[in-house]
Amino acid sequence: MTEWYEFSEARRTIDPDERGFQYGDGLFETIAIRHGEPRLWEYHLQRLGAGCKRLGLKMPGAGSLKARLDLAISESRHESVFCIAKIIVTAGVLQRGYGRAMPAEPSIYIGMFPALPVNQPAYVKGVATMLCETRLATGSPVAGLKTLNRIEQVLARSECLPTGAFEGLTLDAEGRLICGTMSNVFIVSNKVIKTPSLERCGVAGTMRQFVLDLLDRQAVDVEVCDLDWADLVAADEVFIANSQMGAVPVHRCGNHKWAIGDVTRDVMKLLAENGIAECRL
Amino acid sequence: MTEWYEFSEARRTIDPDERGFQYGDGLFETIAIRHGEPRLWEYHLQRLGAGCKRLGLKMPGAGSLKARLDLAISESRHESVFCIAKIIVTAGVLQRGYGRAMPAEPSIYIGMFPALPVNQPAYVKGVATMLCETRLATGSPVAGLKTLNRIEQVLARSECLPTGAFEGLTLDAEGRLICGTMSNVFIVSNKVIKTPSLERCGVAGTMRQFVLDLLDRQAVDVEVCDLDWADLVAADEVFIANSQMGAVPVHRCGNHKWAIGDVTRDVMKLLAENGIAECRL
Repeated sequence: MTEWYEFSEARRTIDPDERGFQYGDGLFETIAIRHGEPRLWEYHLQRLGAGCKRLGLKMPGAGSLKARLDLAISESRHESVFCIAKIIVTAGVLQRGYGRAMPAEPSIYIGMFPALPVNQPAYVKGVATMLCETRLATGSPVAGLKTLNRIEQVLARSECLPTGAFEGLTLDAEGRLICGTMSNVFIVSNKVIKTPSLERCGVAGTMRQFVLDLLDRQAVDVEVCDLDWADLVAADEVFIANSQMGAVPVHRCGNHKWAIGDVTRDVMKLLAENGIAECRL
Repeated sequence: MTEWYEFSEARRTIDPDERGFQYGDGLFETIAIRHGEPRLWEYHLQRLGAGCKRLGLKMPGAGSLKARLDLAISESRHESVFCIAKIIVTAGVLQRGYGRAMPAEPSIYIGMFPALPVNQPAYVKGVATMLCETRLATGSPVAGLKTLNRIEQVLARSECLPTGAFEGLTLDAEGRLICGTMSNVFIVSNKVIKTPSLERCGVAGTMRQFVLDLLDRQAVDVEVCDLDWADLVAADEVFIANSQMGAVPVHRCGNHKWAIGDVTRDVMKLLAENGIAECRL
């Protein structure tokens, strides 16, 4: 079972008046712990900071947050060589009602989980995905952020479970391709890598940003743009990425199939060379 | 302070693995308790049922839910002549990850609060509102439902607090008038009552539906349609409604002012005659 560390008070339960429970008034980060260290830590901090700014929460100090995370890692009975930490930052317990002072003092919760690695053949042969019927609302004031408001992902991901699909891809209400339920999506068209703009909805993953930054440093052009279903179908290669698994090729979405191509393998090689060991083939 | 009754287990705290906390994977109803009885109970049940269906939760039995609510009312130290009950229904504690079986067994939490009545002069002179900068995402798969994903309302309502405005009106990302942060909005144009369609986003309030049903029984035509800022400004009368306060006239939104007119007063009279005592002038 999950171990929970709440550092605002020394207990393992949540007050029902928690605004995270009442309204989803908070944010979270799901962090890959590898050899006792949080991977892509700076990326998680950056996104958490952007989320706190948007939601009107004081950003926890980076040093204090890292110390708390280190404590949770050291106290956890899960193998810190390869596990998951989840940091939840909320507006805590305040007076009833939607409105509150901004910025609010954050309440911080840390959970430790065992990690289930993606099977190695998936990195070679790719994974099967499906198109979710659930569409993401567009024009969200918290687009790109990992808030506790995740009903859309719950609905979309729950579509996948009975089908056995590794991941579900989601469109927005207007038909744009946005992301997977737990990953970001990249397509390759004529050797050009493209990934959907997340200005209107979706979650901007830390691994997505890490891929974009690595490619930028390699002077590889990537287009962050509006894409739709037709762009996906017409792509030469497709891959998905998230903080836990790195990048994984996609060989199909429903009846549409793609080969695993050189560009995807190059991205995975680049990730493997930059600390994402799962992508080593 | 709030009193919380959790009936899935006999305790007053929440498990941090609660999906209501992790993802906002649940729904709530805020119910006016008047003289020991839940007002508009059938309306709350109807919306909760629609929400459970959409979210893939088994709807709690109406009789059992009422019995639990009655128990909470009887045990509460808040004056049951005039207080508030909040029922929260979630997917409970399940395995980690967005996806889950549907329908899931519901976890039920009931909170009792003291009610703060709206001052009587507000019903006569109207209230001041403001236009929120926060826009609602459009094309939501849970449009109209009262889910635990309420960050948009948190952001919008928090804009109001420093201004002293009684309520904030919100537009969607495309500029349509949708609702207030804690109420629904009605406009009157040339004696015709109109209220925004909530097909794309927003919360369909129980009092809104009660008003629509009462007017329908009186053979008064009401248009449920797309409205925008210009429609609001050009209106002859504006009022807002929610389950706690009934209907209240709006005399201004920012610099735009409206008179309190006969149509609004007629609606309030109709509500007062049908059990919404607050609207008696």
